[in-house]
Amino acid sequence: MSIEVYWGSGSTPAWRVLLALAAKGVPYESHLLSFSNRETRTPEFLALNPRGKVPVLKNGDFVLNESLAILAYLNREFPSPPLFGLSPEETGLVWRSCLEYVGHGDPAFSVVARPLLFGQSEAQAQAIRDGLPAVYAELDALNAAVKDGFLVGGTLSAADIVWFCGLHFLQRAATRPAAANFELGLLPFGDRWPNLVTWAAKIESLPGYLETFPPHWLTSDPPSSPHLR
Amino acid sequence: MSIEVYWGSGSTPAWRVLLALAAKGVPYESHLLSFSNRETRTPEFLALNPRGKVPVLKNGDFVLNESLAILAYLNREFPSPPLFGLSPEETGLVWRSCLEYVGHGDPAFSVVARPLLFGQSEAQAQAIRDGLPAVYAELDALNAAVKDGFLVGGTLSAADIVWFCGLHFLQRAATRPAAANFELGLLPFGDRWPNLVTWAAKIESLPGYLETFPPHWLTSDPPSSPHLR
Repeated sequence: MSIEVYWGSGSTPAWRVLLALAAKGVPYESHLLSFSNRETRTPEFLALNPRGKVPVLKNGDFVLNESLAILAYLNREFPSPPLFGLSPEETGLVWRSCLEYVGHGDPAFSVVARPLLFGQSEAQAQAIRDGLPAVYAELDALNAAVKDGFLVGGTLSAADIVWFCGLHFLQRAATRPAAANFELGLLPFGDRWPNLVTWAAKIESLPGYLETFPPHWLTSDPPSSPHLR
Repeated sequence: MSIEVYWGSGSTPAWRVLLALAAKGVPYESHLLSFSNRETRTPEFLALNPRGKVPVLKNGDFVLNESLAILAYLNREFPSPPLFGLSPEETGLVWRSCLEYVGHGDPAFSVVARPLLFGQSEAQAQAIRDGLPAVYAELDALNAAVKDGFLVGGTLSAADIVWFCGLHFLQRAATRPAAANFELGLLPFGDRWPNLVTWAAKIESLPGYLETFPPHWLTSDPPSSPHLR
């Protein structure tokens, strides 16, 4: 049996799974699906996940969707290195950070990033401007939280992976041509949030990191840097 | 040291924590905060959770927010009975179900329930009607998933707790006076989704269950039943 991963380029939830596998050094068979060709809507894929969402992980007959559930599964199946802490307290703190991204970080980032990525920035111009203070607040908190290395327990965890993918999603949006019409005040992140760049570089040094980076972000015009700046 | 829980009546995330403690038979000191008196906005509470959200759990010096993170912590600190499965596969499936509630169930239920609960049902009348098919789809899937007892592995897990609180939130909304203006087609749940009532009754038989039920739901006019019907 071998691990198979169904993913899509630019899906941050899918990217989390690839990074977790890289961190654990687990080889996998990659199935890169095309959103534009509706490959997440085929009967074959809907049989794996009726909700039609990537990522999906397959290990023999076992099939699982929801990126954070996949990370929890992988952490039980391949315990080393641990991605959800060692003690009960660390486990709680890793999950808290992951879930604060889901409930607070991602919604804040999305208000700004999604219109820029999906051609809605003119219609959503006011929402983008109104949403920036919440983004700054999340980045301020994250910058403080990673000052000693990683988010929880001094070592890489699922929390770092989740926030890292979110930051690259934000960087990607802020480098789209449409972003030039806004004073986002985000890039380079290092000017205002220097700890984020140092912290991200450690994740970017994982063996195999570049193969996990959303491929169409590298080939677009302009391309996105695989390094947080 | 003893466990302290800061919660609010009617918060389904907070209710999850009380139910998990009941399931594990862990005693706790209850701090019931009033939303209307803004007791989640005091400096004292914001020192525990800067985001100003319940639940917060305290165990000695350790403080944790985010309900699912609290459940993960409690499961490590008080392993019996396990609420996140035994095998890696069960762990993955429990988390999948919890996260599908967060990402799909709660958004679908909220479109219908929140306007009814918070006096917005006239302004949101069309959104409520448009949102019903997604609610039915979630209930259909849940009804099928619990037919053999519980959601994962034949025993109570965090997934059951999370969906159970969501269903009572929906039942609460559907029994508000404003709901009489809509053909919701939800209640009694047992007519269309009979497995849900059987399943819910097992959770409602937990020792101490009634003390976890949102107190103001019991005293309102009309009161909500603490039993799913």
